[in-house]
This record gives sequence, C-alpha cells and structure tokens, in this order.
Amino acid sequence: MSPIKNAEILCVGTELLLGQITNTNAAWLARELSLTGIHSYYQTVVGDNPERLSAMLELAAGRSDLIILTGGLGPTQDDLTMAVAAQVAGLPLKLHEPSRAAIEHYFTQTGRRQITDNNWKQALMPDPSIVLPNHNGTAPGAIFEMRRGEKVCTLVLLPGPPSEMQLMFRESVAPYLEQHTATRLRHCFVRLIGIGESAAETRLLDLINGQGNPTLASYASEGEVMFRITQSVVHDDDPDLTAAMLTEVKKRVGEFIYEIGPRTMPEVVYDLLLQRQETIGFAESCTGGLISAQLTDLAGVSAVFRGSVVAYNNQVKTRILHVSPDILAQYGAVSAECAEAMAIGCRDVLGSDWAVSVTGIAGPDGGSAEKPIGLVFLAVAGPNGTMTKRLQLTGNRLRIRKVSALNAFDLLRRQLIP
Amino acid sequence: MSPIKNAEILCVGTELLLGQITNTNAAWLARELSLTGIHSYYQTVVGDNPERLSAMLELAAGRSDLIILTGGLGPTQDDLTMAVAAQVAGLPLKLHEPSRAAIEHYFTQTGRRQITDNNWKQALMPDPSIVLPNHNGTAPGAIFEMRRGEKVCTLVLLPGPPSEMQLMFRESVAPYLEQHTATRLRHCFVRLIGIGESAAETRLLDLINGQGNPTLASYASEGEVMFRITQSVVHDDDPDLTAAMLTEVKKRVGEFIYEIGPRTMPEVVYDLLLQRQETIGFAESCTGGLISAQLTDLAGVSAVFRGSVVAYNNQVKTRILHVSPDILAQYGAVSAECAEAMAIGCRDVLGSDWAVSVTGIAGPDGGSAEKPIGLVFLAVAGPNGTMTKRLQLTGNRLRIRKVSALNAFDLLRRQLIP
Repeated sequence: MSPIKNAEILCVGTELLLGQITNTNAAWLARELSLTGIHSYYQTVVGDNPERLSAMLELAAGRSDLIILTGGLGPTQDDLTMAVAAQVAGLPLKLHEPSRAAIEHYFTQTGRRQITDNNWKQALMPDPSIVLPNHNGTAPGAIFEMRRGEKVCTLVLLPGPPSEMQLMFRESVAPYLEQHTATRLRHCFVRLIGIGESAAETRLLDLINGQGNPTLASYASEGEVMFRITQSVVHDDDPDLTAAMLTEVKKRVGEFIYEIGPRTMPEVVYDLLLQRQETIGFAESCTGGLISAQLTDLAGVSAVFRGSVVAYNNQVKTRILHVSPDILAQYGAVSAECAEAMAIGCRDVLGSDWAVSVTGIAGPDGGSAEKPIGLVFLAVAGPNGTMTKRLQLTGNRLRIRKVSALNAFDLLRRQLIP
Repeated sequence: MSPIKNAEILCVGTELLLGQITNTNAAWLARELSLTGIHSYYQTVVGDNPERLSAMLELAAGRSDLIILTGGLGPTQDDLTMAVAAQVAGLPLKLHEPSRAAIEHYFTQTGRRQITDNNWKQALMPDPSIVLPNHNGTAPGAIFEMRRGEKVCTLVLLPGPPSEMQLMFRESVAPYLEQHTATRLRHCFVRLIGIGESAAETRLLDLINGQGNPTLASYASEGEVMFRITQSVVHDDDPDLTAAMLTEVKKRVGEFIYEIGPRTMPEVVYDLLLQRQETIGFAESCTGGLISAQLTDLAGVSAVFRGSVVAYNNQVKTRILHVSPDILAQYGAVSAECAEAMAIGCRDVLGSDWAVSVTGIAGPDGGSAEKPIGLVFLAVAGPNGTMTKRLQLTGNRLRIRKVSALNAFDLLRRQLIP
C-alpha cells in the first residue's frame, strides 16, 4: 500500500447538524493529523442518514487517502455509521467475539445488570478490518479499506464521545498512521506571554518565511502566542534540527517564553509550586473566581492550593482581606494600592506562602476617562515582599477576565522561577 | 424566487483545517437555521484555497437552496472568499462606496491613523448583491445569487470572527431569511433539572413520537435537560398551539422545570436575586471558584453578588468560614454537617442575605468506599435557616465540578422562587 499523504475528517451526527453540540472532534483530529504530517483538506458533518453518508464516502474516497469518521457507532437505531461504511466498502459485517465479550465485561464492571439486545450490534464489525478496542465505553472502532479501481482509501471509524474517541486515536490510530506515512515529524512547542502575535512574528519573520526544514509557525490564543517548530524526519536517527531553531527563537523572544513543551500556564505554575513545596491563594475581584477555577480544574492541586477570597464587594475586601478603608477612599478599589493590600491580606488570612490579587474593570458597564474598562491591577505577595502590575486590556468582558487570569498566573510564575 | 427550504454551512479557513481553532460558527449557525425552519444537511470546512473552495461551491449549489459561508472576508492575501464566490457566481466585483466609507470611519473611530492599502479590498463587492454592514469590524458581508440552469442558489457570506458573524446574521440575514422561507416557526424552550434525559423522555414519549404540530424534541446537556416545542406557522395570526403542549409538559414534568425561555441557570438565579433585591455569596470547596466564575461571567452581577470563599484547605474552612474543628474531626470535610457550617459561616462573614456551600470529592484521587468520588454535599443558608442536599454524581472531575455548580444554583433557586 502506498503511504497516506492526505486525509479528511467526516463527523456523523444529527445533533451536530442541528447545532445542539459544537464539533470539537474535528479540531482535535485536525491537530493530531497535522502532527503526523498528514495534510487534511476537508472537514464535513452529515446527519445520521444512510444516503447522504454513502454519497459523502464516495466523494471523499475520490479525493483523499484517508477518511477519519467519528460518531454513529453506538447501540441505537440512529447509529448506522459502521453498517453504511462497510456496505460502501463492500465488506460483510461479522460478530467480533472479543468485542462482544468486552461489551459484556463493560456492563458487568459498571454494575449494570441488564444488557439490552441492541448493544450486541456494536460488536458487528466489517470483515476484514482492524478492530480498535474502546477503553472508555462500549463501541469498538475499526480500520478498513475501501477500493475504487486502483485507488485505495483507508477508513478509520471512531466513536463520537470525545473521551472515547481521543483515547482510541492515541492508543490505536496514531501508531497505525505512523506505520503508514512516509515522513515523521519532530515537534517543539514554544509558548509566549507578554508579546502580541504580530510583534512576535515581526521578530521571527525571516525564520517563518524561510520554511526550510525545520519550519516555524505561530498560533495566537487569547493573551498568549504559541510557536511550533516542526522538523520533517526521514529516519528516526536523523539529527535533531529543532534545537538550533529553538536557540535562535530564544535569542530573539526569550524573555517572553514561559514554556517549551505542552503545558498550559496554570500547569506551569502548579508544577513550580509543587517543586518548591509552597502554597498559593488568590484574592479575586473582577476575575470573580476564574483563576481559582482554572487552577482547581487540575487534579491534585490540594498539595499547593489553599483557597481564595472572591472579594467582589468592597466590604468583603475590608472585612476578610483587611484592606484599609482609607486605601479604598483615597485610591479606589481599582488601584495598585488596593491590589497590593488585597494580596498581603489574602496571604495573611489564608496562611499561604504566596498570594496573587486581581482588581479591575471588566465592563461592559463602569469605567471612566481616568479608569477605563479593561484597566486591571495585579499584585503578588510572597516571602520577600510584594509587587504590582498594571494592565490596560481590550476586548469584551469575557476576554478581559480571561487575559487578567492568564497574567495573574504569569506574575506569580516570574516570582517562582529559579 | 421559490422559498428557501434547505441550506448548508461552509466555513472557510486554514486555521480550522489545522485544528488551531474550534469551529463554533457552524454550530451557532445550525442552531439559528433550525429556528427559522430551514433544514441543513451539511457542514463543511475548507482552507483558504481557491480551487477547493470553487469546487465546494459547485457541489453545494447542486444540492442546497442556500449556502452560508463564514470566514475569509478580511484584508489579507489569504482572504479570498468574496472574490472566489463572486467568480463562481459570474458576478464582477465593484467598489461599494458606503463600505469604503465605513472602513475609513472604523479606523478613525478606533484611533488608528494609518489604514494599510489592503483594507480597501474589503469594500469590493459582487454586483448585484445585498451588502451586509459589519457593526463589529471592517469586512462587510453579502447576499447574492448563483445560477446553474433553472436552479438558483442563494449565497450568504459572513465574516469569520464570531462577534462580527453573529451580529451580522441577527441584523441582516435573519430578517432576509424570514422573507424567503415559506413557513414560520414558533418556539418554546423548557429547561429541566433533577431528572435524566431518558427518564424525562419516557414521561413524554407519546408527545415526542407524535410529531404533529407542534413537535417536541429533547436535548441533554451536562446535568440538565432541555425540551423545545416547535409550532410551524403559516400566517402570523395562526393560533398559538405551543401553549397547550406546554401545559401537557408541565403536567408531566413540572416539578423539574426551572425555566420556560432562553435563560441559563445562573441567569435565572441572578434575575431572582435582582427581583428580591437580595445578595448572595458562595463557600466553594470542590468546585474551587467555578460557581463564582459562572455568576460573574454575567454583566452587572455586583448588584447581587458580594463575594466568595474558596475553602479548598480545611484550615481555610475553620479560619475564614469558622467551621468548627469538631465538625471536621467528627464528620469530615465532605459531610452535610460541614456543608451547613460552611454556608452559615459564609453568610455571616460576607454579610450576604444568602450563602450556598459545596463540599465534595471531584477525583480522580481521593474517595473511599464510604465516601466515593462524586459524593457532594450542598447547603444553602438564608434568612429562614439552612438546608442541605446530598448528591452522588458520576463522570470525571470536570463533569462532577460542573454538575455540582449547576445543582448549587438550583438549591438556591428553590429557596428564592415565590
């Protein structure tokens, strides 16, 4: 079989067509494909409809080496992806005994006594096919071929629920694709904060436009910028060229880099605190609990996180955080002075090694000529004193809150790095 | 022109194909289309590539009355959707003077002095077309026709950024579609909490399967269930048949309904507090700030929200919320007793009319046979005393935190309703 060069993603589900759920699977799979070096030119959504699904498979097989399908593998009448795809590929369905046993085991394990008959349908697999076990649910996936004359198209069928789909892709599909592509890619991710996308691009423009091997490409997300260095590798022992590119990138934008790797900002801060065996607490005003919620999204944070005070109202600032009423009267709640007092009071009352505070105007109401919407003050209090930072952010309420949270983590990070 | 009956959504952008951003526009537009009564059978993503975009337009025009495109209307070289679509439709591009003036005005207003030349490209519009003003950015949209023999397909081109796209759709496209569809739909949304999707469906099965006019359909989201009653209306003064269906739905699942309308749970609680002119604070353990963050996502909450204490660590529970160490020793932090003490202490220290507390085990670590992962206690303290609630939730850490937050709002809501 010739190597897989290009692919497309085909998501099946009437709930997607009606907009009841957002298609996060397509973006996730597209990212994974781009990491394998397979180009993907189309993403399509069709409903649980045999005619339209068949027609889409014919169309896609004519233009792509690989079709990754998600959804419609479950037990109900609507779930027809496996049967339709097998029929289009001209393959019969046969009961796959290990899958039948796995479904039985899944139900026993989760304590459900009755297995309704429609569940066995999920063990009917095209023959021949590579059956992909589902370690987060009942419906197995499959890899099989669809032939049209000389052209062979590989179909990969995955379940729709992201937790099942992602695990199955990582366990079974990624290793398969690695065997069936001509090139390998070697990646290095660089995450920056404190510099805009266009400013960062300007500093790196010759490297981005060079597009030799390795390549450099940027992505912007709210308040931060990510670069990806990608080397195309023919043999596994080819020398690593990403390191030289990374050195050059560091030389030009090093002061803004917070992570070389896959971790998010809250993960970087969590790991730093864990290494130092120190604890943190937050005093949040305009972010209203968002910073704490982002940190506690991570499992195991109780080792470093003591708690937070969401001091939305000024009385909460004075009562719990012991911010002096004089500071509020003289400088106002949105001021460096108030941020500093909040951080000091927070560290004190929570008994944490560090405390970070945020106070600002997220809008859409409030704000003045002197203190416009988007004005935010941060402070960090720690063993060696306090420091504050002033931000003037743009965008709507959601963006101002999100970027404030990111910068609050960063302010702390800068104190924690050795 | 014959009425528009079916549509498809075509999103243009290499950043979507690479998975750098998730395609939220398709789901949003699909939802809006389903509300207008136009069926949509396909969603497609293609890159900023003239050949593939042209081919997709030909394919889509052959099977749909309406194609809604998003993305690729901006000033850069990559942005070629308008030019390609005009060419496929056989229409010349002409400078649209009001759009040129609007772009100039936009730059002046946002204080940018230099307007780079590529910006004027955005004012080149197909002739003839209906130009759609952009009130959140620079690139106007357009509606024009593409003819293939007898068949006429309507193209609607919208910008990619959701804030621009959504406003333009609401202001210009929705009214246009209302003029060009044969039917109107009358909707009524019913939101439920405290009952699972399948249990709710079982109680309403005959109404769901009836599928007369109006129809009843369900959607499940994490921890809640939504039903939509949809009546197809020919004349605006047709009698409202949704009311009778709603009465029947209320009769069967009334005790679980928290909203008849579009509001989310935090919005319902916010409005109730506003009506009563009362204030709220939260004491969060396992939700770690999530409840507070959800409430403060809403603009203007300072009128009802005083603040929160994220008491992740037990010392924070005793120090700030004055939970007695005896309670922690005797019942543990995850107990009805602790939840109650947290709520009482929180109301006290924040000086709010109401306080809601959450304490539980979100996993993936922790938990025991007696207190398994997913065990959560809620309490609400108010002017007339305290009440607690025990939940045993399933799913991963993220789901347990999300459903806990939803139920915390609901516990408060039940105290607030008249």
